[in-house]
Amino acid sequence: MEDLILIIANKNYSSWSVRPWIALTAKGIPFREELIPFGPGATHPKFRELSPTGKVPVLHHGTLRVWESLAIIEYVAELYPDAGLWPSERESRSLARSISMEMLSGFRALRGACPMNMRRPVKAIELPDGVMADVARIEAIWREMRQRSGGPFLFGDFSAADAMFAPVVNRFSTYDLTRDPETVSYMDAMRAHPAWRAWEEAVLAEPWIVPEDEA
Amino acid sequence: MEDLILIIANKNYSSWSVRPWIALTAKGIPFREELIPFGPGATHPKFRELSPTGKVPVLHHGTLRVWESLAIIEYVAELYPDAGLWPSERESRSLARSISMEMLSGFRALRGACPMNMRRPVKAIELPDGVMADVARIEAIWREMRQRSGGPFLFGDFSAADAMFAPVVNRFSTYDLTRDPETVSYMDAMRAHPAWRAWEEAVLAEPWIVPEDEA
Ligand SMILES: N[C@@H](CCC(=O)N[C@@H](CS)C(=O)NCC(=O)O)C(=O)O
Ligand SMILES: N[C@@H](CCC(=O)N[C@@H](CS)C(=O)NCC(=O)O)C(=O)O
Repeated sequence: MEDLILIIANKNYSSWSVRPWIALTAKGIPFREELIPFGPGATHPKFRELSPTGKVPVLHHGTLRVWESLAIIEYVAELYPDAGLWPSERESRSLARSISMEMLSGFRALRGACPMNMRRPVKAIELPDGVMADVARIEAIWREMRQRSGGPFLFGDFSAADAMFAPVVNRFSTYDLTRDPETVSYMDAMRAHPAWRAWEEAVLAEPWIVPEDEA
Repeated sequence: MEDLILIIANKNYSSWSVRPWIALTAKGIPFREELIPFGPGATHPKFRELSPTGKVPVLHHGTLRVWESLAIIEYVAELYPDAGLWPSERESRSLARSISMEMLSGFRALRGACPMNMRRPVKAIELPDGVMADVARIEAIWREMRQRSGGPFLFGDFSAADAMFAPVVNRFSTYDLTRDPETVSYMDAMRAHPAWRAWEEAVLAEPWIVPEDEA
């Protein structure tokens, strides 16, 4: 099988890049990473060449290009059906997809006001309308799924759904958005995961600053 | 097997409802429809009771609730693996998911300026920034996928990806956004499909007006 090549942007800032990266890494799926740091305007002309949307992440597999973070995960889950990217039980899997797509399509207020920034010291900011409603909904999702599965991750073991929410864990802590003990217990599970730690280690070694994402 | 119950809003306006409805209908998958017309503010208090996000569509299957239009389609595709909701070939399937998720997560300018309104007479409006870029990207997707498959639909036969783009066919025609012959040929294929015609027939019988969606 040809190598999977995952093209991503800065690990400190690129919240969509972290999702497939952490999913594949957590499940031990081999891939080559190609990191293209954001230039001015939090973009890069090379994204246009490499990705049909001009955005990253994009997965190259031979001549095939797969884009959209969650579509990349779905494709790799089909290549590696035994890796456990999705929960094995059908109802759980349907819930995992519902919440993953809710993340993909929504939470615009939170995403806009609180960009992922893994290096940023903890500091609250003034929050526009809608951010705390997004926070409350995400906390409800995490609580309900972990109650249902018994935790520590949303469906017991780490799955694609956790990968989709990984950047939110950074947002919640760095902008000091919650102290709810159940939420913090999920955040702790995420931050203790080897795939998260590997990403974080790479973040700390990155030199680049993207002014647009420094809130 | 228990009945699938698909809860939707007005067929004239609810662009997210049409997606799973037309997908299931096109593939002959049995389900019961429950239509709750939008009240003031293009919402309804019942959505909160019936759907974890307070939005429709939502699928009820026994005690299970599946939300997000595309997650509903994925769930039903698992229940009916031979129905052909997704293309059967893996590369095509990965492209179908990439473009379906691009639709789910994007095209905000078009979606905001040009709400689906199936009854509306054709009439151009003034377009805010970004709408024509969305139109161009969607036309590129349709062109490329139909060239690859030979058409008439994006992957040959009607699939989940066509369902995800169905409301755009209405937007393109009713706001007079394109006359590109290849685009129009795809729109014609969609509008001739029995599932589209069944939806349209129900639209014409609906009495309700939603002022928020009359652009
Ligand atoms: N819905 C897409 C979002 C991708 C996205 O917005 N990527 C950002 C980086 S995190 C990007 O490429 N921005 C550069 C640009 O838009 O030019 C996904 O899930 O992959
Ligand atoms: N991403 C969701 C969007 C659902 C959505 O926005 N639904 C609208 C109707 S088309 C709705 O329920 N609006 C009422 C409200 O938000 O209260 C999906 O794909 O299902």
